[in-house]
Amino acid sequence: MTKLIVSWLPEANRKGCLFPLNNLPYGVFSARGNPPRCGIALGSDIVDAAVLAEAGLLEIDPLTFQQPHWNAFMALGPKVWLDVRSRLIALFREDGEAALREQEQLCRKALVSMSDAELHKPFSVTEFTDFFSSWHHAFNAGSLFRSPEDAVPPNWKHMPIGYNGRASSVVGSGTKIRRPWGQLKHPDQIEPVFEPSRKFDFELELGAIVGTSTNGPVTAEDADDVIFGYILVNDWSARDIQTWESRPLGPFQAKATATTVGNWIVSKFALEPSRTGGGSENDDLLPYLQVHRPNLYDIDFEVTLMPEDGKETTITRSNHRHMYFSAAQQIAHHTTSGCPMRVGDLIGSGTISGPTDESLGCLLELSQNGNRPLKLQNGAVRRFLDDGDSIRITGIAQQQEVSIGFGDCNGQLLSALHDPYTA
Amino acid sequence: MTKLIVSWLPEANRKGCLFPLNNLPYGVFSARGNPPRCGIALGSDIVDAAVLAEAGLLEIDPLTFQQPHWNAFMALGPKVWLDVRSRLIALFREDGEAALREQEQLCRKALVSMSDAELHKPFSVTEFTDFFSSWHHAFNAGSLFRSPEDAVPPNWKHMPIGYNGRASSVVGSGTKIRRPWGQLKHPDQIEPVFEPSRKFDFELELGAIVGTSTNGPVTAEDADDVIFGYILVNDWSARDIQTWESRPLGPFQAKATATTVGNWIVSKFALEPSRTGGGSENDDLLPYLQVHRPNLYDIDFEVTLMPEDGKETTITRSNHRHMYFSAAQQIAHHTTSGCPMRVGDLIGSGTISGPTDESLGCLLELSQNGNRPLKLQNGAVRRFLDDGDSIRITGIAQQQEVSIGFGDCNGQLLSALHDPYTA
Repeated sequence: MTKLIVSWLPEANRKGCLFPLNNLPYGVFSARGNPPRCGIALGSDIVDAAVLAEAGLLEIDPLTFQQPHWNAFMALGPKVWLDVRSRLIALFREDGEAALREQEQLCRKALVSMSDAELHKPFSVTEFTDFFSSWHHAFNAGSLFRSPEDAVPPNWKHMPIGYNGRASSVVGSGTKIRRPWGQLKHPDQIEPVFEPSRKFDFELELGAIVGTSTNGPVTAEDADDVIFGYILVNDWSARDIQTWESRPLGPFQAKATATTVGNWIVSKFALEPSRTGGGSENDDLLPYLQVHRPNLYDIDFEVTLMPEDGKETTITRSNHRHMYFSAAQQIAHHTTSGCPMRVGDLIGSGTISGPTDESLGCLLELSQNGNRPLKLQNGAVRRFLDDGDSIRITGIAQQQEVSIGFGDCNGQLLSALHDPYTA
Repeated sequence: MTKLIVSWLPEANRKGCLFPLNNLPYGVFSARGNPPRCGIALGSDIVDAAVLAEAGLLEIDPLTFQQPHWNAFMALGPKVWLDVRSRLIALFREDGEAALREQEQLCRKALVSMSDAELHKPFSVTEFTDFFSSWHHAFNAGSLFRSPEDAVPPNWKHMPIGYNGRASSVVGSGTKIRRPWGQLKHPDQIEPVFEPSRKFDFELELGAIVGTSTNGPVTAEDADDVIFGYILVNDWSARDIQTWESRPLGPFQAKATATTVGNWIVSKFALEPSRTGGGSENDDLLPYLQVHRPNLYDIDFEVTLMPEDGKETTITRSNHRHMYFSAAQQIAHHTTSGCPMRVGDLIGSGTISGPTDESLGCLLELSQNGNRPLKLQNGAVRRFLDDGDSIRITGIAQQQEVSIGFGDCNGQLLSALHDPYTA
């Protein structure tokens, strides 16, 4: 049974608080006129990690935290990640050390109210790989792009199928997304056209962040050790561009407009009590992909769509346990060739669709490629995203009375430019 | 008519010299106990750029060149690239300035004999995108992987088809390559196996290096301006892994063991006289891909295979003019979605196959997927690469009496590890 670690900061103990002392997610914030730097969410505050380090309360060079990303900290390795987590818990727990708690001035300096801070992308994305590891999504998308008979190729259950995405297009939560132009071919025409995408979509994903570099193949059993934490991901997708471009080398520009990441990285340690089984069966897998403990997480995701008029509709509810392959299995497969993984690599789970109509992770599935329009609260319908629509993804790992929140992953779609070449 | 720019360094004027004053390619070298830093090939020497900058002969902070990559210099922009090229020509031409030539001690410091230097990967690869833009290669490979009828999908002539590769696996010339293990499925078996690749191949490519970042779509006409220079590329490929993994998202681990780049980046300016037409026709293209001047280069490539016993065989001779789409067209397509390009992005041309059996850019084509073994000088045959084989790619842009060399792009294939998980 997971127990709340009670803090002397009352907000962190409030029932339903998404950032209790059990969580301690990593973010990047700016406040008080300082440039963006590393912070940790606690209750309704952000802990300014550099201030604690400067005060000698964390045995880390304060410069490590005076960066607009957590990559320098990640590079210090898993022992340091765990040590700093333990130190933070000792400093903030009700029955912990007095070192910080009794220094009123230091506390004021070290704690920044979330409402006074702006959040930024919490890490620098080295490379981005996107997988395709929900069976429900693979079957549904394959059925719509091809046919139910040819939906899922024979390799799918033997390996986590993935492709390399584009790190340069990964943006932080809140960044507005411009509807792209692209090359697409209408079914009733012979020649392709260059037009704004008409089928712009979101994809609900969970990203794993590589915190330890690798050099040579790593098994799924060992791959868990290289993961620093998890972050919400919305992999925006232009379905009409995707359909026309994907043969034979896979998606390319359809996925390159933007990928939005959430504003907090939840550490692997905070998710430990949420481990859950499911997904692939070892009997069906080659040894390098086999895992011998629960390898998925019980994380509830919710996606809301808010049209420009402002009324939100929850359009899907899904859970990480619906995945077939875990991030550790994905990383294991990614290294089979000897491909080096590096600190800051982002590993997208792939769209997290569940088995029901209410748990589908993108509009392609929710609207059956536009054939079953989705009804919104305000009476409008959606096949794909309209200009002005905002998509918000949230995630909570509920551990009995403890809620581990992932913060938000938001983005609003702006209308396409009239002419993208005279912008 | 391209004329040799005569230098006071006699070696640079020698007939057939690959590094005359017309060339001035960018490399990274270490010598005299110094860590790797920026150098420029001239005759049989390397010009130590930082030494010239320290002496006040280039108006650039010497720190820019005291790096193990040219990225910091690239980021200074095209005007600086051209200024420094003009300064170097003025300093080294026979009828140029006396500033360097007459300072014997400075000359000794600034010029390092190539035979005393070790060469390194000349730039830091930000992201790597690989295209598929030789019609001959697309048709041949598609015929072998699928069938001649289904060889090339209908999108192919409308856009440069490409996929994102893996920057972490790009290595410098001379790096030994370990034959990978991977998941593959033998045609006579139902279940896949995890084994060393049996069909390990090279791919002859030319890489373009992005020197200017972009934000928003760029037309092919304008995309030429963002290119810093060109480099030889060998995109090692495991064909058996590729066959099994590529549906539906394209190649992944088959291309992730390693990609070798050459040791010199040839500047766009040096290649200007080698521009040649051919490739796609504007009439067939959407406006953003149209180009109004010769957009390919007359560069002769040669690939040799050297078995471990040491006798080299030239296995192919090809030329960049056989391409259908140019790097500028590839970058233009890459940005259609709004995808940002960044300094140091590597854009692979795709395998450069010509129309004849002697100009095919990989063993998959040369041996017809193993069905037509290739004879070597020493009497041996090759379907794919054997352990110990070395592949060397060279490139020369012949401009009348002036030879613009690309240096070497070498790699030797080592045998697979007995067990990759106990390395």
